[in-house]
Amino acid sequence: MKKSAANSALSALGRRIAAPPISWLMQAALSRPRLISLAAGFTNNPSLPCAVSRRLLDEILKSEAGPPALQYGITAGETNLRRLTAAHVQALDATAGGEAHCLERLIISGGSQQLIYMTIEALCDEDDIVLVEDPTYFVFLAVLQSRAIRPRGVRIEQDGIVPASLEQVLAALKKSGAIRRVKALYLVSYFQNPTGVTTSFEKKAAVLDILKKFEPAAGHPIYLIEDAAYRELRFAGAPDAPSALTVPRAPARVIYTGTYSKPFAPGARVGFGILPEPVFTAVERVKGNHDFGTANLLQQLLARALQTGLYDRHVAKIQKRYAQKALVMKRALAEHFPDNIEIWEPSGGLYFWARLPENVSTGLRSAVFRAALKNDVLYVPGALCYPDDPSRARPNHEMRLSFGSASPENIHEGIRRLGAVLRKFV
Amino acid sequence: MKKSAANSALSALGRRIAAPPISWLMQAALSRPRLISLAAGFTNNPSLPCAVSRRLLDEILKSEAGPPALQYGITAGETNLRRLTAAHVQALDATAGGEAHCLERLIISGGSQQLIYMTIEALCDEDDIVLVEDPTYFVFLAVLQSRAIRPRGVRIEQDGIVPASLEQVLAALKKSGAIRRVKALYLVSYFQNPTGVTTSFEKKAAVLDILKKFEPAAGHPIYLIEDAAYRELRFAGAPDAPSALTVPRAPARVIYTGTYSKPFAPGARVGFGILPEPVFTAVERVKGNHDFGTANLLQQLLARALQTGLYDRHVAKIQKRYAQKALVMKRALAEHFPDNIEIWEPSGGLYFWARLPENVSTGLRSAVFRAALKNDVLYVPGALCYPDDPSRARPNHEMRLSFGSASPENIHEGIRRLGAVLRKFV
Repeated sequence: MKKSAANSALSALGRRIAAPPISWLMQAALSRPRLISLAAGFTNNPSLPCAVSRRLLDEILKSEAGPPALQYGITAGETNLRRLTAAHVQALDATAGGEAHCLERLIISGGSQQLIYMTIEALCDEDDIVLVEDPTYFVFLAVLQSRAIRPRGVRIEQDGIVPASLEQVLAALKKSGAIRRVKALYLVSYFQNPTGVTTSFEKKAAVLDILKKFEPAAGHPIYLIEDAAYRELRFAGAPDAPSALTVPRAPARVIYTGTYSKPFAPGARVGFGILPEPVFTAVERVKGNHDFGTANLLQQLLARALQTGLYDRHVAKIQKRYAQKALVMKRALAEHFPDNIEIWEPSGGLYFWARLPENVSTGLRSAVFRAALKNDVLYVPGALCYPDDPSRARPNHEMRLSFGSASPENIHEGIRRLGAVLRKFV
Repeated sequence: MKKSAANSALSALGRRIAAPPISWLMQAALSRPRLISLAAGFTNNPSLPCAVSRRLLDEILKSEAGPPALQYGITAGETNLRRLTAAHVQALDATAGGEAHCLERLIISGGSQQLIYMTIEALCDEDDIVLVEDPTYFVFLAVLQSRAIRPRGVRIEQDGIVPASLEQVLAALKKSGAIRRVKALYLVSYFQNPTGVTTSFEKKAAVLDILKKFEPAAGHPIYLIEDAAYRELRFAGAPDAPSALTVPRAPARVIYTGTYSKPFAPGARVGFGILPEPVFTAVERVKGNHDFGTANLLQQLLARALQTGLYDRHVAKIQKRYAQKALVMKRALAEHFPDNIEIWEPSGGLYFWARLPENVSTGLRSAVFRAALKNDVLYVPGALCYPDDPSRARPNHEMRLSFGSASPENIHEGIRRLGAVLRKFV
């Protein structure tokens, strides 16, 4: 049987799903030992909580908590961790709790990525539309691509999403009748991947108002999926903006996703979501079919870290660490990058965003990218983060620069190498 | 907005997905403290590897393996664990390896459940058909239900699937034209859930021949999904039957799934699959979208357990433990169950299968089930494990009895209580 025939046993999703662009970047990195990757979204290796995890796992496994930690659990997650997580988000939001951070609507997942995937399964059919920031997190775009769900971009600026652009996009969709396919707006609200921008509380409230306004035309709720993956990696600037959950009457329309991967340990992959009905029940059932609940051992590790205060202490430590590394990158950019490159400086998260003159392409096939690779430095081309959109050309002159995993020395050296390359092109 | 309108924002899957029947069982269990559950598929709590896990995690986290264990990894899984897992399956199959246990086609997942879910995503569209044993694993039926994929039952006997029945079912599907929708046969080949039966190597080979024969009519490959979740829980009987991977020329059509949950620790949820192309690539990409790879810390724990031989020692220990518990259940059944109940005795796994006279119903709403619950003993009604099939009435006179999680004393007492109930009905 020929390959085409073999392929035909696959589902539409199986045939459609594209290779992740990032796998190509990782391959490139593996074959060049001197390469400095400013592309990876990995966290800072030396500050991973090895000692803390070692101590807590030891305590768990030698106590009566040991056998339950190695046993099956409850699909929605360990009750103690759910309670601690609800309280944790509530503390971040500095509110009195209640409906907004309801334990009963909280589910633990394998990182927030799994929660986002299951939410899309529960909400969207083929040809449905999800609004996204333009640009947005590229793995989210990959999820939509695999499921033939259509992203539509909403403009962002250095202070976050542009409500007027959201209104414009929705009005156009209403006019075309496609509004009935719009299920959600996906917003990476803190130190966004890839641009580092944060959307203010006022803008979140405005966004919810606008979504609400278009619900009658849609004929159903339009949800705000607030992806707060980078929220706890704040190291500068104004105090934390409350989540959209705290906007009055918002909980019925807000799907809030968070993770302990970035602030604690990606290798102990635990994330969570707070979801309104009927989405919560659908996602809980999907979770049952995926894996009947996230590994209990990891849930107990996180619960104990939260309970002992070691989690908060760790977060404070890595916030300082990232502040230092961001400063190294900022200074290196000032020293080595040409002046006509616009730099968006974040107050948290893992990424700087660099905007070259529009005529200088940074894509995977560009001269800049090839020269950078030849000089052993890697970045994420901005173009990978933009959805297809017939109403504008795909921007291809930007780069995401991560200070997450590289050492301070390598951040400086990587930016130096990249700056030298860029001076030849801009 | 009314509830019906709120529902309408859900996807077809989100609206369709049913509550798992098992959640009702678990609720029932929670509210009765004296209840003995012979329903749960949990493993034996006292023999979970707390000491081993504690020691290995301590070694990992204090060594240079620590930071990578807490960092992101590779979507398909940690290279070392993939290598060890390929060698492990090869050793179980007692073969010289090669194509059948190819590392490049092996992927690590969050338990084998996640692997099975992703395989169905990659293979099946709505209205496709998957053949299953009649009865089969009820969570697999739930996955199909949620995705509007149609199960078709194939008869089983005490020595496994009946190839003549498979041939018959396929012939009927060919006649009706529905054969073009048949994507796979799902076979729980060792100590099946729920019946405990094992399919011999000869029958696997026969099954593969039959599937192959119908491929021209289907117009595409028909895969054998071999779910070997219980394989290592053997405690009696003939030596392990080799997997379907070792049938000559079979690897191109066999999707083999295994797990370390049952033999080691469900709370350190690591499973795996060996898949032929193009299914492997599709599933690897789906995995990237689900969670970019299973938690590294758990993968390293399993790798170290395998590498040090502690895994094998643990498996030998729990095999003995389950042998004892199965013997307790066997003796209790002989002592307390009425003679006219047919008992299928397993050589491994976690389950006995009891068949009452056909006129005595055991379902969730039956008098037997209610009386059992009132007497504080719980079983899984056989009816939950049968797919809908217009060609036969759904059997409703059987029960799955698990000796996995209950203590020997509770197994005996549970069977005594259940026997007393049954004497009133049969």
